[in-house]
Amino acid sequence: MTYCVAMRLDAGLLFASDSRTNAGVDHIATFRKMNVFEVPGERLITLLSAGNLATTQSVVSLLRQRLAHKGVPEGEHLFNRASMYDVAELVGRTVKETVARDANAQTLGQGVDFGGNFLVGGQIRGEEPRLFHVYAQGNFIEAGQDTPYFQIGESKYGKPIIDRVVRHDTSLKEAAKCTLISFDSTIRSNLSVGLPIDMLLYRTDSFAPAAPHRITADDPYFLKLSRGWGEGLRRTFARLPDEDWFR
Amino acid sequence: MTYCVAMRLDAGLLFASDSRTNAGVDHIATFRKMNVFEVPGERLITLLSAGNLATTQSVVSLLRQRLAHKGVPEGEHLFNRASMYDVAELVGRTVKETVARDANAQTLGQGVDFGGNFLVGGQIRGEEPRLFHVYAQGNFIEAGQDTPYFQIGESKYGKPIIDRVVRHDTSLKEAAKCTLISFDSTIRSNLSVGLPIDMLLYRTDSFAPAAPHRITADDPYFLKLSRGWGEGLRRTFARLPDEDWFR
Repeated sequence: MTYCVAMRLDAGLLFASDSRTNAGVDHIATFRKMNVFEVPGERLITLLSAGNLATTQSVVSLLRQRLAHKGVPEGEHLFNRASMYDVAELVGRTVKETVARDANAQTLGQGVDFGGNFLVGGQIRGEEPRLFHVYAQGNFIEAGQDTPYFQIGESKYGKPIIDRVVRHDTSLKEAAKCTLISFDSTIRSNLSVGLPIDMLLYRTDSFAPAAPHRITADDPYFLKLSRGWGEGLRRTFARLPDEDWFR
Repeated sequence: MTYCVAMRLDAGLLFASDSRTNAGVDHIATFRKMNVFEVPGERLITLLSAGNLATTQSVVSLLRQRLAHKGVPEGEHLFNRASMYDVAELVGRTVKETVARDANAQTLGQGVDFGGNFLVGGQIRGEEPRLFHVYAQGNFIEAGQDTPYFQIGESKYGKPIIDRVVRHDTSLKEAAKCTLISFDSTIRSNLSVGLPIDMLLYRTDSFAPAAPHRITADDPYFLKLSRGWGEGLRRTFARLPDEDWFR
């Protein structure tokens, strides 16, 4: 499985993904699920992916190789789409193209799910930062002020903490801490989500080169956060009032 | 959907269930999912149920009416089984009996899931308290010291907090608080789980009459707990260290 979170906050964008993939419990591997496409100063586009790894890798490979239109006429690609809406549409179309190629009459009865989900966010100069969830069917929804975040993959374990903390006006710093705690909770409860975590913070209108961080199992900050959070929970617990009928 | 939790701690047993049922989002109703069977001083058996409401209600009705063997020879029932293991086996057999009766060739193609899951726990004099998870297939597993709790239904949202707090030697009081917070988190993140919550605490070897508590939306303690927990989380957050690259 997979766990990915993306947020569109007033302060900017946040992307985070785990890196465990599995086909059954005896076929586990590590793959980066975050892909960044950027033209410094002009646009930054980040894709997080969940679902069938063959599908999601193909979508990313097709998007990437179409940026370099060697010897072929230039088609639509991530760097010539005018808006993030058009980028999301292009990703959705590439998902449909890949699934249409790979899934056919022979595979229908084999119980393989060829679907892949993407979180597509970024900023193109002239627009605000935007964030989309592209479904396995290729259609998509956009995050707004009321719901500033999307999750894909094993989303349930880590949802309550985000629901409690994150609003559109949450700072990137707070959102990053909350996201890491959401990952910590998910990793503790579900074997199919695992470290390292890739995280990218993007400040609105900065158009700075993307500097994703990779958080490994021995990352001292993540360990400190995980321990601090656990201790804080226990402290909070100890302070909560008891009820008369708790005998 | 549904959310139920049961724990087998050194101090005793804990049972909690929500009471929302739904068939689609436009058919929502309130049903008690906790059923207690007791012979004060001799045995206490509690069933929590999730899954197809017709199946789970039928199982409980059959178990209940077989206690009163009016005019028919006494068969196996909840009050004459010698151990909690035998009780779990009887519940599993009744699940299979109900599904075999209701699911047939005609219903096969209709996409109806007739399955029902039960958490079955209690104490029979001469035994320690025991807790079982009876699957929709009628087979079952027992909780132990390493994994002292089971969940059924919408279990993922509320699992991390239990994983962090509950061990076999956790007190009933702490476990009850943790369980209510687990429900609060689940209810905030998933519409298909709703108040009121039914909760029953049973102290090992007490064989006292069961006194389940119903926690409604305006329960002052639950509101206090929910608010206190939210505030505690935010306080814990504020204290957690920042990382250099959170810019």
